[in-house]
Amino acid sequence: MNLLCDLPPGGVGEVTERLAGGATVRIERIVSRGETSPDGFWYDQDEAEFVLVLSGAARLQFADREVMSLGPGDCVDIAPHRRHRVDWTDPEQPTVWLAVFYRA
Amino acid sequence: MNLLCDLPPGGVGEVTERLAGGATVRIERIVSRGETSPDGFWYDQDEAEFVLVLSGAARLQFADREVMSLGPGDCVDIAPHRRHRVDWTDPEQPTVWLAVFYRA
Repeated sequence: MNLLCDLPPGGVGEVTERLAGGATVRIERIVSRGETSPDGFWYDQDEAEFVLVLSGAARLQFADREVMSLGPGDCVDIAPHRRHRVDWTDPEQPTVWLAVFYRA
Repeated sequence: MNLLCDLPPGGVGEVTERLAGGATVRIERIVSRGETSPDGFWYDQDEAEFVLVLSGAARLQFADREVMSLGPGDCVDIAPHRRHRVDWTDPEQPTVWLAVFYRA
């Protein structure tokens, strides 16, 4: 499988696909096309999340005020309960993420 | 951190760096520069391994005779104890892998 191919078509919103995983880990591909988290919404997760941008561009915002612009190859390991949201994804091209959710 | 930047210099062999993980998962970047598994050697792992090529080119060989050529974006989820080896990595460019080892 190639994560940069067979992308879901535009117009269907953000699409998440499970790639692999076990009892304590979940590996997903997420394809965004301009989607962002709702205003004022924060992810607040029990699991750690390692996230990597494979193509496109995005910006993460953290409740601790850090802002992170991400492009191809950029990754971040988000600790459990570090509140964050997707502030922006490029509306002009698909943004492909690899996300690994795991028990820290 | 950008996984495609700050690559280790050539001449030092394959380099593995731990990026993240917990009790049951280990996320690593591996940079190969032509290295392969020794002839006749097979990885035979208790853990599952999800592996993704970010740049470069490689070929995996499985003891069940499947051979898999991998380029940027290609990934494979290798079941525990599915014996495999790295048959080839491109000697002309660095091959950057993301590997996630986990309990299946």
